[in-house]
Amino acid sequence: MSKGITSKNEDYSQWYNDIVMKADLAEHSSVKGCMVIKPYGYSIWEKIQAVLDKKFKDTGHSNAYFPLFIPKSYFSKEASHVEGFATECAVVTHYRLKNDGNGNIIVDETAKLEEELIVRPTSETIIWNTYRGWIQSYRDLPLLINQWANVVRWEMRTRLFLRTTEFLWQEGHTAHATAQEAVEETEKMLDVYADFAETWMAMPVVKGVKTPNERFAGALDTYCIEALMQDGKALQAGTSHFLGQNFAKAFDVKFTNKEGKIEHVWASSWGVSTRLMGALIMAHSDDAGLVLPPKLAPIQVVIVPIHKNEEDLKNISSFVDELTAKLKSLGVSVKYDDREAQRPGFKFAEYELKGVPIRLAIGGRDMENGTVELARRDTREKQTVAQEGLDIFIVQLLDEIQANIYNKALQFRDEHTTEANSYDELKELLDGKAGFVSAHWDGTPETEQKIKEETKATIRCIPLNNKQEDGVCIYSGKPSKQRVLFARAY
Amino acid sequence: MSKGITSKNEDYSQWYNDIVMKADLAEHSSVKGCMVIKPYGYSIWEKIQAVLDKKFKDTGHSNAYFPLFIPKSYFSKEASHVEGFATECAVVTHYRLKNDGNGNIIVDETAKLEEELIVRPTSETIIWNTYRGWIQSYRDLPLLINQWANVVRWEMRTRLFLRTTEFLWQEGHTAHATAQEAVEETEKMLDVYADFAETWMAMPVVKGVKTPNERFAGALDTYCIEALMQDGKALQAGTSHFLGQNFAKAFDVKFTNKEGKIEHVWASSWGVSTRLMGALIMAHSDDAGLVLPPKLAPIQVVIVPIHKNEEDLKNISSFVDELTAKLKSLGVSVKYDDREAQRPGFKFAEYELKGVPIRLAIGGRDMENGTVELARRDTREKQTVAQEGLDIFIVQLLDEIQANIYNKALQFRDEHTTEANSYDELKELLDGKAGFVSAHWDGTPETEQKIKEETKATIRCIPLNNKQEDGVCIYSGKPSKQRVLFARAY
Repeated sequence: MSKGITSKNEDYSQWYNDIVMKADLAEHSSVKGCMVIKPYGYSIWEKIQAVLDKKFKDTGHSNAYFPLFIPKSYFSKEASHVEGFATECAVVTHYRLKNDGNGNIIVDETAKLEEELIVRPTSETIIWNTYRGWIQSYRDLPLLINQWANVVRWEMRTRLFLRTTEFLWQEGHTAHATAQEAVEETEKMLDVYADFAETWMAMPVVKGVKTPNERFAGALDTYCIEALMQDGKALQAGTSHFLGQNFAKAFDVKFTNKEGKIEHVWASSWGVSTRLMGALIMAHSDDAGLVLPPKLAPIQVVIVPIHKNEEDLKNISSFVDELTAKLKSLGVSVKYDDREAQRPGFKFAEYELKGVPIRLAIGGRDMENGTVELARRDTREKQTVAQEGLDIFIVQLLDEIQANIYNKALQFRDEHTTEANSYDELKELLDGKAGFVSAHWDGTPETEQKIKEETKATIRCIPLNNKQEDGVCIYSGKPSKQRVLFARAY
Repeated sequence: MSKGITSKNEDYSQWYNDIVMKADLAEHSSVKGCMVIKPYGYSIWEKIQAVLDKKFKDTGHSNAYFPLFIPKSYFSKEASHVEGFATECAVVTHYRLKNDGNGNIIVDETAKLEEELIVRPTSETIIWNTYRGWIQSYRDLPLLINQWANVVRWEMRTRLFLRTTEFLWQEGHTAHATAQEAVEETEKMLDVYADFAETWMAMPVVKGVKTPNERFAGALDTYCIEALMQDGKALQAGTSHFLGQNFAKAFDVKFTNKEGKIEHVWASSWGVSTRLMGALIMAHSDDAGLVLPPKLAPIQVVIVPIHKNEEDLKNISSFVDELTAKLKSLGVSVKYDDREAQRPGFKFAEYELKGVPIRLAIGGRDMENGTVELARRDTREKQTVAQEGLDIFIVQLLDEIQANIYNKALQFRDEHTTEANSYDELKELLDGKAGFVSAHWDGTPETEQKIKEETKATIRCIPLNNKQEDGVCIYSGKPSKQRVLFARAY
């Protein structure tokens, strides 16, 4: 099959789109800004969901479901929240259509809502309005809840997975008796996200804190994990917010503490979305297509028979059945592609495009020799491997591939994290697609804003456990105690 | 704890609401018609989802995700579909809010959509519009796709789980090369639903076909499973539709068949929703609270220590740890409730309310005797059971409880399915809450409509494999070849 993937060195953005489309991950829908997640793409999202959901439950959280619609007035209750979210959103104003008598379907103007409903862009407001009824005493705390849902933020310029009007995500919303507990929760969930990104997605991340400019609307502190893509741009892969008592005050959620005093509740919220799919694609893939870390690959091993006749195929299939059973019992997902209508070369290209970590090709000669031909997707190397002990070999190789993909991404990030000691140096590095640039900043929103306007780079984060170092701000020359990470970002 | 549940004989509807609220399953949200599914309720829905999802995958289906919004014009493309779904729906007309300068958040009239978007009430239109790009040849068929999603149908009168403006569901949408294959799929998925209802929900169902009046808007045939609730009303628990070529024609989805001829594609769609939660509650519960079939209970066994001192508690806990490990390895979910703040009696009432199938109470005397006190939720019987071999005893008992709950519901349904041979008899039976009434009908929509207006009963279905029997319509006296099932319904 002709893959028709643009080279990433030629046009990274087109390369990304080609991979998403040709690997059957997603496509633009006819509804502006909304995507269709295709079965193969969705099966990767399901793996992401399953792993995260287990991690949330293992850390004591339960899932629940809150309404899609939020009354307009709720957004006004938390002052900074409304600026951040209520501007670009889908507004429901009517609840009925009718036939105008000429066969046209029109909005029924007699069915106008008294108060408009907003399709949730995030659920803090509706959830905290609900928590008021659930929390009375310290005994009701902590309340540790997560929701898997669709959300809508109206976007003018969209990119599949990275920025779409509707997207899928999870949003954790927790309530605590003390500020300290809420901060601990915020940090714990950041660790959960970081571990997921590194261990499962094979994608190294920097854990950090956002500057006030980049905070979530309504948060006292926003923690994030930042990853580096192959084009030197950063991608925020997950955020965890310490909300203080802002939403509790806005929605009047109080509790009686152990001493019998009434206080407002402390809050956190945290989320990751289908944007992770974009990160996963960009972190590892190449000009031959998607490269998936084995732990998130819906198909880990594909087997293609190369037979001259029915007899060959029968022998091969019988060996494959046995191997498949062994691999499945070891938790490996296997696909045997014995379609007759396609040639082996077509299949090879297809699974390469789809990022299947290991491909086995087995012919009549292999059966005589007791071997298989094994191709790794990550290195694109082929080797001949004995059929004897193949199942164990594959399990170990999957681990090796997972580690290799991670190490490659880590090496890339290390090579693309540079210190800049002057503003010119920063600009030069950014223009050279140098990735993360570590530089001194005077800590003011004004300087940050100027740098953003002039270079299109933002402060991705102040890394946690940052080294303290005396220096001067590259922009203002004012004193600074630590470096922060700049980058252009998705 | 005081349960405060209305007796179901006194007020069935209030009893239902009490159970939903007090067992912490769901509550009304502040958004009219929308519910909040609480963690305990959602954990039951998650079990339902997991089982169904596996069944869908085992029958060859993949999950995907399509947009929440559907352009208004799409509904006009399938003539009967628009009448059925586009009337009561949430209409998005704008995509921005703004501050009016006086601190009020108002709709930005400059951000009006050219074409209104409808929040999906069901996704045939958007999905078939997408399938046009996915299907060219018979090689692309069958296309077997399912979506887990939220949908919105504007409802004036709502009841938690049973009828809400927003609800959660799955919708399967399949495409086939022939009518026969599409019908086979429709019937196969009905069997999947029936098996789920009976084997997992312990709820007997009648499989049948809807009359034309009750068909899904746009279907050639609607198959359904109908269950009987304890108040003698029927509940449609799932539907599977043979859509013919209606949507393929409306959205111009054609394929080249094996003979090289171009044809329209054949379709099915099928769905179940959070309504199943309502059915599950009403099928089995009693005045003490929820009764859950073990296979869908988030907690299958709860253990309550009854200790006089720390020494007692230590012994009991050590035994419980061991038992819990054994039960978990056998796939049984166990909760050990050693909260100090609540008394055993309070805990007993709470787990009874929440429908936990088996409750163990263990005191110091039990530890001396090597016994536990075991209470079954379904029969509310207590017995003393030996600690030796308790894990195996419990596994067997869970099966027995599952079977008992099913048999009880089956017996109820059998006792509440009656033949009527005159219209008076039908009316009398309906008023006496007799459940399903099997009667002859002349096959005309007019008669069906008259009976519905006069008795509030509908034809629930024409049972599959119905016995052929000569008779006369109870309403018109015209000849009839078979009986159909009448009932008042949710």
